[in-house]
Amino acid sequence: MPALPDHALTRALDLATDLFARLAAATGDPPGITRASYGDGEAIAQRILSDAAASLDMEVSTDEIGTLRMVLPGRDRSLPAVVMGSHLDSVPHGGNFDGAAGVVIGVAIAAALRAIDHVPARDLMVLGIRAEEMCWFPAHYLGSRALFGLLPRDAPDTLRRVDTGRTLAEHMTDQGLDPTPIREGRALLDPARIACFFEPHIEQGPVLVEERLPVAIVTGIRGSLRYPQARATGMHAHAGAVPRRRRRDAAMAAVRLIAALDDRWSRLEAGGADLVCTTGILATDPKHHTSTKIPGSLRFSLDIRSLDAALLAELDTWLGSEAARLSTARGVSFDFGPPTHAAPALMDPGLRALLMRSASEAGVPAREMASGAGHDCATFAGLGIPSVMLFLRNEHGSHNPYEALEMADVGAALAVLAPALRERLG
Amino acid sequence: MPALPDHALTRALDLATDLFARLAAATGDPPGITRASYGDGEAIAQRILSDAAASLDMEVSTDEIGTLRMVLPGRDRSLPAVVMGSHLDSVPHGGNFDGAAGVVIGVAIAAALRAIDHVPARDLMVLGIRAEEMCWFPAHYLGSRALFGLLPRDAPDTLRRVDTGRTLAEHMTDQGLDPTPIREGRALLDPARIACFFEPHIEQGPVLVEERLPVAIVTGIRGSLRYPQARATGMHAHAGAVPRRRRRDAAMAAVRLIAALDDRWSRLEAGGADLVCTTGILATDPKHHTSTKIPGSLRFSLDIRSLDAALLAELDTWLGSEAARLSTARGVSFDFGPPTHAAPALMDPGLRALLMRSASEAGVPAREMASGAGHDCATFAGLGIPSVMLFLRNEHGSHNPYEALEMADVGAALAVLAPALRERLG
Repeated sequence: MPALPDHALTRALDLATDLFARLAAATGDPPGITRASYGDGEAIAQRILSDAAASLDMEVSTDEIGTLRMVLPGRDRSLPAVVMGSHLDSVPHGGNFDGAAGVVIGVAIAAALRAIDHVPARDLMVLGIRAEEMCWFPAHYLGSRALFGLLPRDAPDTLRRVDTGRTLAEHMTDQGLDPTPIREGRALLDPARIACFFEPHIEQGPVLVEERLPVAIVTGIRGSLRYPQARATGMHAHAGAVPRRRRRDAAMAAVRLIAALDDRWSRLEAGGADLVCTTGILATDPKHHTSTKIPGSLRFSLDIRSLDAALLAELDTWLGSEAARLSTARGVSFDFGPPTHAAPALMDPGLRALLMRSASEAGVPAREMASGAGHDCATFAGLGIPSVMLFLRNEHGSHNPYEALEMADVGAALAVLAPALRERLG
Repeated sequence: MPALPDHALTRALDLATDLFARLAAATGDPPGITRASYGDGEAIAQRILSDAAASLDMEVSTDEIGTLRMVLPGRDRSLPAVVMGSHLDSVPHGGNFDGAAGVVIGVAIAAALRAIDHVPARDLMVLGIRAEEMCWFPAHYLGSRALFGLLPRDAPDTLRRVDTGRTLAEHMTDQGLDPTPIREGRALLDPARIACFFEPHIEQGPVLVEERLPVAIVTGIRGSLRYPQARATGMHAHAGAVPRRRRRDAAMAAVRLIAALDDRWSRLEAGGADLVCTTGILATDPKHHTSTKIPGSLRFSLDIRSLDAALLAELDTWLGSEAARLSTARGVSFDFGPPTHAAPALMDPGLRALLMRSASEAGVPAREMASGAGHDCATFAGLGIPSVMLFLRNEHGSHNPYEALEMADVGAALAVLAPALRERLG
């Protein structure tokens, strides 16, 4: 596929660099930046992006629920559009790149096409999606699900922002937006009008940094099985006075369960399975625990992710039977609490191949990898829209002020994405 | 050995029953009772016991640091005394029997001897020891170590009561007592003047209840190796985005260490070793933990107890090497923090045999067992004084309002102890 000329890519990278600098300056909240979902920082970021899009003569609009749409019109407006984008919100005191990079790169590619006066066959639509970070409103992919009418209809009135305690509807109204489409379950964008979806995003893990690769093409977004509020209950007792066989040690029983999961994970991975397992919370009761008492209860969490939905189901069954075995052996009961399930979202094989080929032709070293984090792209893929993500190398993980995306790697992403998009745009 | 006549044992049991009732009434602090170390509840308990001893015509005195001494004089005052007793303090909202039972039974045995007008060759000294519960002043066996001049000399001025923040010296002065002997490292009781020491105490575990035995003869008091403030430190990261081999998961590394200790414990116990291991505290950082984040740090405690000092030392070495292995394998460092060590205290074989024989002759079913909890008796045994403990069956463990010692089991203990003491008293 034909590369874009250097001056076009340079113009795109200059614009991206400028946009990142303006975002950081305008939404700074030391340490880091804050762009709350349906809050002011998110609105400021939208304005910075929409100003840039307007100066590229893109059609800029905001729908009723606040999604920013920036369209580079194609020759045939009746054709489904090529869509690109990501979210503009951030965690509190987060980094400048999680989410925003995907929107900035979308606008930068529009600038590259403008630089060569190319009018493609199809529309290129760049989306600035709302409310992806779950730390504000506790719902997966809030903005992208709302866009397609997929949120529960009571969400505007039952979801409350964690920091303010106020409802989604109240925060939307504050921003001059209208929760009615969500209450009606009404889609604001027709999946049939989307030819394909691209989401560039920083990698939130260390793989690309450690492997010295600027980008990766994502194979899929892992689904998850989570038990955020599991509990083991045994019996508090004197640490010295109860022999092994009479203990009902909640902590030790949970330790054995988690260690057994770790063993199973190790074996499954050795067999080629895609899997990550995390116990983020492990807590004896701070009101009662002491080093000289056998703990009678322990709170813990389980977060298990895989590209393989069948494997997640199999591990769920295994967890139940292992817990039952430990309950009998150790006199400790397990209550896993309510689970959450997210289905894996596989990326489109054609788009993956397209990006791998583009990377190869552009001389950009790349690998394929799974995404362990959830992304708006899962909403698009779940609707049957051919979708793909490109990860950009980023140091220090995400959701912290130390996210570090090098502009040279943005240049590499542009060199991979621009020709691929141009091919799909026609 | 000759049993005491029924009327003498009945008188002893009646007195014990009455004393327990008076203690519960006078130091009640619902739920349960409170007798703070060097506090009012402890002083009230001393008064109840000393009044009873005085009415038995025992010699009652209190030494400079507040130890209650109640002496049934023997025929030859130059002979070393047979000493019996325990502590009179309790945890806040504790049960009526932990500690007090040993003092009450001592006075009750004096009553039994008075009932048959028996004047033994040696003095019988019953001690009401101060400050054994570590929840008030953080020191092992404070009262008994002070009695023998074994406390650090700065203890009166550096040890602070956890609830008030005031020093041991201030609390002693409040009670009309004098911390000077502790500051001078001066013993108030000469070990050479003690022929042997008996400490009756409720069992703090479930063994006697479950085995339907009224009493047990203690083989030894387990020593301990404790790391109350251990910490594993790795790196916080996204639960989904970091592959297994790149994780530095503090919780999982600690889980593997604790599970490995549990495995080792299981093997050692199968080989006949005396051992109990407890992780009472296991806590990801509540300010940072969440179910979707790999935990970068974890606090935990280790409490390992055994009658075998060599085994404790061996496990300490093993813990260090296992932690080093896990550090390398999992990129997590372990800081065990300051350890505390308590040496095991073996009970005197002659006294153990004496009590087993007495139980057998009295028709009281009994077993031998280790004490997992620490007791003042360890101070006496550590000084080379022939010492032994008798455990009494007790439901619901100790250090809680639900301690339940049946008076029938106090009767069984009296039937075992009285003839044995009489034999030793001459």
